[in-house]
Amino acid sequence: MDDVGDVLAANARYYQAFEAADLDAMSAAWERSDRVTCTHPGWGSLRGWGEVASSFAALFQGAGVQFVLTRPTAVVVGDAAWVSVDENLLGEQAGVTVATLNLFVRGDAGWRQVGHHGSVVHVPADL
Amino acid sequence: MDDVGDVLAANARYYQAFEAADLDAMSAAWERSDRVTCTHPGWGSLRGWGEVASSFAALFQGAGVQFVLTRPTAVVVGDAAWVSVDENLLGEQAGVTVATLNLFVRGDAGWRQVGHHGSVVHVPADL
Repeated sequence: MDDVGDVLAANARYYQAFEAADLDAMSAAWERSDRVTCTHPGWGSLRGWGEVASSFAALFQGAGVQFVLTRPTAVVVGDAAWVSVDENLLGEQAGVTVATLNLFVRGDAGWRQVGHHGSVVHVPADL
Repeated sequence: MDDVGDVLAANARYYQAFEAADLDAMSAAWERSDRVTCTHPGWGSLRGWGEVASSFAALFQGAGVQFVLTRPTAVVVGDAAWVSVDENLLGEQAGVTVATLNLFVRGDAGWRQVGHHGSVVHVPADL
């Protein structure tokens, strides 16, 4: 069993859903429960699938986002896992890197996302 | 067994060590392994205890920090757990809130921290 590979595949589903602005796919990628949490860059932490789903519905109304993901590492502890990854944005936000921590829990239907926390990596203004 | 209480106690040890600028206490609170990850607000993600420890050693040279923690919630999945919490800063950075996700893993010595991700909650400039 390749747990790390399965977790990285679950992580990829999050970004594929985001790039496609596909709320159904995002909903399938997440555990739709009260215990999920999501913190977009600069936002307060959202708690529970209702708040998290609403945030994606709103974000998907805006300009599309494309990511180049770098330095993904997955760690599995039993039925829980985390992925640390850098999101390098393309398009209107090209040059921005978002340091990210994604959480996953394994249930009957496989790995589902339960957490996302992204924050912009600051670069000195003169670079 | 009160797993949630134990995880919240482990979470409290992180903040006690931070407020005391006590690197030994911070070292005792963390799992000192390659798989830990830490993302301070605006920083890139640090990986492994060596990088994480160095960051705290550097941060502890600066002005002290005090936190008022709000909205802590802990979720336990087997031997892994996460805490979502808001850090409200006092002192020089009063008025700043850092949305935070902390990760913990249970080993022979109890719950040890394996992840921290904090990001400043942005407030419109005219507030």
